[in-house]
Amino acid sequence: MEVGIALERAQQILLDLVSAQGETKVSLFEATGRVLSQDIQAGENIPAFDRSPLDGYAMRAEDIVTASQNNPVHLTVIEEIAAGHIAQKALSAGTTIKVMTGAPIPVGADVVIKWEDVERIDQEIKVTQSLKSDSNIVPEGEDVKKGELIAARGTRITPPVLGLIASLGIQQVPVFTKVKIAIISTGDELLDPSEEKRPGKIYNSNLYTFQAHCLELGMEPIPLGIVMDNQEAIAEKISQGLEVADVVITTGGVSVGDYDLVQDAVNDIGADTLFWKVAMKPGSAMVAAVKDNKPIMGLSGNPASSLVAFDLLVAPMLKKMQGLEKQLPSVISAVLSDGFGKSSPQRRFLRGSLHNQGGMDTVKFTGAQANGVLKSMVGCNVLVHVPAGSGKLAAGEQVSAYVIGRIDDTY
Amino acid sequence: MEVGIALERAQQILLDLVSAQGETKVSLFEATGRVLSQDIQAGENIPAFDRSPLDGYAMRAEDIVTASQNNPVHLTVIEEIAAGHIAQKALSAGTTIKVMTGAPIPVGADVVIKWEDVERIDQEIKVTQSLKSDSNIVPEGEDVKKGELIAARGTRITPPVLGLIASLGIQQVPVFTKVKIAIISTGDELLDPSEEKRPGKIYNSNLYTFQAHCLELGMEPIPLGIVMDNQEAIAEKISQGLEVADVVITTGGVSVGDYDLVQDAVNDIGADTLFWKVAMKPGSAMVAAVKDNKPIMGLSGNPASSLVAFDLLVAPMLKKMQGLEKQLPSVISAVLSDGFGKSSPQRRFLRGSLHNQGGMDTVKFTGAQANGVLKSMVGCNVLVHVPAGSGKLAAGEQVSAYVIGRIDDTY
Repeated sequence: MEVGIALERAQQILLDLVSAQGETKVSLFEATGRVLSQDIQAGENIPAFDRSPLDGYAMRAEDIVTASQNNPVHLTVIEEIAAGHIAQKALSAGTTIKVMTGAPIPVGADVVIKWEDVERIDQEIKVTQSLKSDSNIVPEGEDVKKGELIAARGTRITPPVLGLIASLGIQQVPVFTKVKIAIISTGDELLDPSEEKRPGKIYNSNLYTFQAHCLELGMEPIPLGIVMDNQEAIAEKISQGLEVADVVITTGGVSVGDYDLVQDAVNDIGADTLFWKVAMKPGSAMVAAVKDNKPIMGLSGNPASSLVAFDLLVAPMLKKMQGLEKQLPSVISAVLSDGFGKSSPQRRFLRGSLHNQGGMDTVKFTGAQANGVLKSMVGCNVLVHVPAGSGKLAAGEQVSAYVIGRIDDTY
Repeated sequence: MEVGIALERAQQILLDLVSAQGETKVSLFEATGRVLSQDIQAGENIPAFDRSPLDGYAMRAEDIVTASQNNPVHLTVIEEIAAGHIAQKALSAGTTIKVMTGAPIPVGADVVIKWEDVERIDQEIKVTQSLKSDSNIVPEGEDVKKGELIAARGTRITPPVLGLIASLGIQQVPVFTKVKIAIISTGDELLDPSEEKRPGKIYNSNLYTFQAHCLELGMEPIPLGIVMDNQEAIAEKISQGLEVADVVITTGGVSVGDYDLVQDAVNDIGADTLFWKVAMKPGSAMVAAVKDNKPIMGLSGNPASSLVAFDLLVAPMLKKMQGLEKQLPSVISAVLSDGFGKSSPQRRFLRGSLHNQGGMDTVKFTGAQANGVLKSMVGCNVLVHVPAGSGKLAAGEQVSAYVIGRIDDTY
């Protein structure tokens, strides 16, 4: 067991521990937000044929080379085809076929003219301009070429990715199975919101915060409720979690006192402790263990501490289990809007939101930075990295920021 | 009916047309991603009492004013309390109470010392340092003050927002009802992925792309399948959509030719057309109508055109219906990574992804910009605004970009 290790070491231990879960197939309607378990390669060109991007007339460019206002060319309309239909006839010199948007280009034609740009007289049209060959023709394979990689294994299925998969005629989408996460809150002081208020007690928020977080990551949370500060009860609850889930997350009971029981409970059930405490603030108090290849993450009971530890350490591990290619938070460069008046003997992460000011990324702090303050996680999408031994931070200072949430929410 | 109007005018027409849907209440477990329909105000302080942030001993600061290594102060331990429990005794001069993390501060105490920092001898402790009053005490209301606004009506419920709501003991969360969106694809050329491939046909992607898009926005898509290019059939399908949904979105059949039937179908069912065509590329071909206060949005059949129109026009309207306070995409300043080699007689939006380069927001184009190209919507989270009459764009040029997707995906 390693104690008080660096964040990067802890991240590496957790990422080395896990791999992507099993694979399954889901229908197109169920695939949004899931992670592709196989590369999707185009089996054919999209579109699979040359087609018209507009309503007009298909013809041979050479037939209208001389066409002008003063020297119109007359062509005979021999057929009319809508999208989804194939011309029965081939074009020969002096003829044209009317085509609708999306219709396949008839054999023999190499140019389409907008219907507004010609004059139709019965079964003839009058063309008064010339066009280069291939004008107004969407070539076969314009969107996707046969054999092209549409989306790689490990990609989250966004709306356009799903659209591309559908356009290949794929009905069943190969995805990784969802990670199941058992969530347990420990602490004699905790009440569920369904319970009546009592002196000395607080309502439990962590269970709900993490349940929401797992849902937003596209995973399956299994909330197992509150367990009192009792080593045996905690051990039993963790065992229960290991039975129903791929990962167990607990909050509370991981610091250094008489009632910090999660570590002892983890030992009791025969799990191997991987590390205890990470050298950062908030989120330092934490125990990571493993049993039957299933990670057990004991996080702090302090709401902000546990969320920061989740974002920096647990989420990357869960993303790897979910099959996602990108796991660690991006680290970007940004400028501080406001200063921070305390020096940081320890390595520290400050909660903030990212804003675009005249093209520059700028961070505003989202409020009080104490471990127990959940409020400052609201709107927080970056964590400003403050190396150990830093002095106060000045407004305008250039900093590194770890991206942990949706930036478009505050931009 | 207005024709060929500016994007901003079209946005305004649509936003003026709609308002937030009804309100309902959901459990904490169902609330993630929903939109608050009422302000949430704190009915009490969180935490509701002063508490200890660590395992240690609570005492009176005045008792240890003189304490030092050479002049230790001895205090009698009169009680021991865990989190969730209340001290039975009050502190008097010369006494201390052992407190665990999260425990309420006993009456009479105004300071807590870490247990590692004192020496315990039977029922006494030896203190060798002085501490200022209020040291190591988390004050009542540190996270949230009574009466404080926790989250405003119109806020999307993120994990920390949900946690704060739970910490107030609220079980039923007031949210707006989900917007229901009927999605219809029109076109003789379309096949569902479940159908066999046939010449001249293409697999329909729009239905799936928009279904996914609505899900990601936290709304309820109702996919109604493909309807052929037949005015009566389209009218019937739109009527069906109006019966089951709050909004109807169609793709295809909205340009200018013989087979552009959505506008006629909308007239047939007695809907009022609001506008036709928006002065931008892609996404220009579009018809907006309303019947029984329900918007009908007829978008282009071209995948990229319809997605851009959706992001810039339809999504803001849907967000207002969903009750979200922020509706229109943020417009930010950014620098182009690459140039764009065409001039733009029309107002244009180019698909790109946003990146942080040394603190500066930078846009990379996501591929070919033709209307039919869905591929370049993959990874696209910003649309670069190119005003009408612009020449070619050079790498390094400062541009405006509309934020339409998750930035943290590409940052």
